[in-house]
Amino acid sequence: MNVKLVLSYNGANYCGWQIQPNGVSVQGVVTDAIFKLTGKKVTLIGSGRTDAGVHALGQIANFKIEGCSVPPEKFYKALNTLLPSDIRACESELADNDFNARKSAKNKTYRYSFYYSETENPLINGIALALQKKPNFSLMRKCAEILKGKHDFKCFNASGSGAKTTVREIYEIDFIKKDFGFFVEVTGNGFLYNMVRTLAGTLLEVGYGIKTEEDVKNMLVSGNRSLCGKTLPAKGLTLLRAEY
Amino acid sequence: MNVKLVLSYNGANYCGWQIQPNGVSVQGVVTDAIFKLTGKKVTLIGSGRTDAGVHALGQIANFKIEGCSVPPEKFYKALNTLLPSDIRACESELADNDFNARKSAKNKTYRYSFYYSETENPLINGIALALQKKPNFSLMRKCAEILKGKHDFKCFNASGSGAKTTVREIYEIDFIKKDFGFFVEVTGNGFLYNMVRTLAGTLLEVGYGIKTEEDVKNMLVSGNRSLCGKTLPAKGLTLLRAEY
Repeated sequence: MNVKLVLSYNGANYCGWQIQPNGVSVQGVVTDAIFKLTGKKVTLIGSGRTDAGVHALGQIANFKIEGCSVPPEKFYKALNTLLPSDIRACESELADNDFNARKSAKNKTYRYSFYYSETENPLINGIALALQKKPNFSLMRKCAEILKGKHDFKCFNASGSGAKTTVREIYEIDFIKKDFGFFVEVTGNGFLYNMVRTLAGTLLEVGYGIKTEEDVKNMLVSGNRSLCGKTLPAKGLTLLRAEY
Repeated sequence: MNVKLVLSYNGANYCGWQIQPNGVSVQGVVTDAIFKLTGKKVTLIGSGRTDAGVHALGQIANFKIEGCSVPPEKFYKALNTLLPSDIRACESELADNDFNARKSAKNKTYRYSFYYSETENPLINGIALALQKKPNFSLMRKCAEILKGKHDFKCFNASGSGAKTTVREIYEIDFIKKDFGFFVEVTGNGFLYNMVRTLAGTLLEVGYGIKTEEDVKNMLVSGNRSLCGKTLPAKGLTLLRAEY
C-alpha cells in the first residue's frame, strides 16, 4: 500500500529534509521511525527538499509498504510516539498507488516570517526574522506582480545548484500582515535552491527603498544574481503546503 | 550607579532565573556577561524568580556598579554581544539609587499561551500549550472574577514553597483571543510558586466544564490544592512585565 503523510517540523536541528552522509535529516529520522514501527525499510518521498534549518508545517511525504498491520489512517499517531518532539506527523491516509509526493505535486507554498522588534525576541527568533522598521507594502506588492508568472529565475539560483532548467512559474505572492509583523507567502510549481529566501530578501530591500521596480526587472532579464537582494536566513522559512 | 535592565529570554535551556548550585540560570549567565563586559562582579536583582523552563519578555533587573565606563543607556547593546541568543537585553537605563527590581515592583504580569491544534506544532510548541478544542470563555471569565482580588491563595501554593504568607492580590485576569489560540494574562502584586500555572490549569478545566464556579469558590475557601486543576507545563508561561 501507498501511505501519504503530512509532516511538520522545526528545522533548527536538522541538515534539511534529505538524507545526507553527515548530519541528521528529517527524511532519515522519519524513515527510522517507520522502521521501528513496522520493521520495514521504506523509501520516503517528500514533496520537496527543505534546506538545512528550514521548517515545515505541511510537508507531504509518501512511502510504499507491504505486510504492515498499522492502518494507514492511524499511522501518524503511532509514528508520533517514536518521533522526536520537533518532528510531528499530523495526518496519514491511504493514497492511490501512483501517488508520488514529489512528482504529483502541482504547487508548493513557502512562507517567510518577519516580526517587528528592535531587539531579537528569543521566543520567536528561531522561526522568524526580526525587522527594525516596517517596509513599504505598496512597493513590495508592485514588485511581486513583476515576479509572478513564468520566468527564467536564473538570478535567484544559488551557485552549486544542479537544476536542469531555471524556468519556474510563480502563481501567487501574498503579503499577510499580522500585529507582530508579516508573512510573505509564495506559491509556485517549484523553486530553485535558496530561491524563496533570495526572493524574500529582494522584496524586503524593495520595501525599504534599497531596490526599485527597475532593479527587479533587470535582475529577471539579466539573470544576474548580484543584482538581487540578500538571501535571508533559513530560520524564517517554512514549507506551508503542497497541493496535488 | 544603579542600572536597570529589561531582559527577554527563552527559558527552555535554563534552570530558571535564580542562580542554582547545579544548572545554568539566567541570572548567572547575565551576571557573567556583565563581568566579561566590565570586570566587575555585580549582584543582579530580578523582579521575580521565573521557574525552570519559564520564559520572559519583560523581566526587569537592576545592579549597582561603580567605576564602569559603559553608559547605562548603551549597556544593553554591549551586553547582547556577550549573551547567548536565547537571552536578550532589550533596554537599559540609569535608575534611582534606591530602585530595587524586586522590592520596588508594584505588580507583575504573566501570560500563559495556548494554541489550537490536534497535533503539536513544532514551531511554537516550546512557547505555548496545544489544545485540541476551544474552551468556553464565558465560563472562564466568570471564574476569573471570583479569583480576582485579595485572597489567601493557599490552594495554589506548591508544596515545598517557603512563602511566609499565601495571601496575594490579583488585579486583573485577561483572556486575549488570537486566531491561533489565546493568552491568559494575570496581573498581581506577587505570585506563589507555580501559582499562575495552576491557576491557568484550573481556568482551562472550568472552560472545558470539568470544574465549576462552585469548585473555584471551594478551593479558595478550603485552601485545598487537590480541588484545583492541573499545573500546566512551564513552557507555556512567560513573564510579560513588571510595573513600578
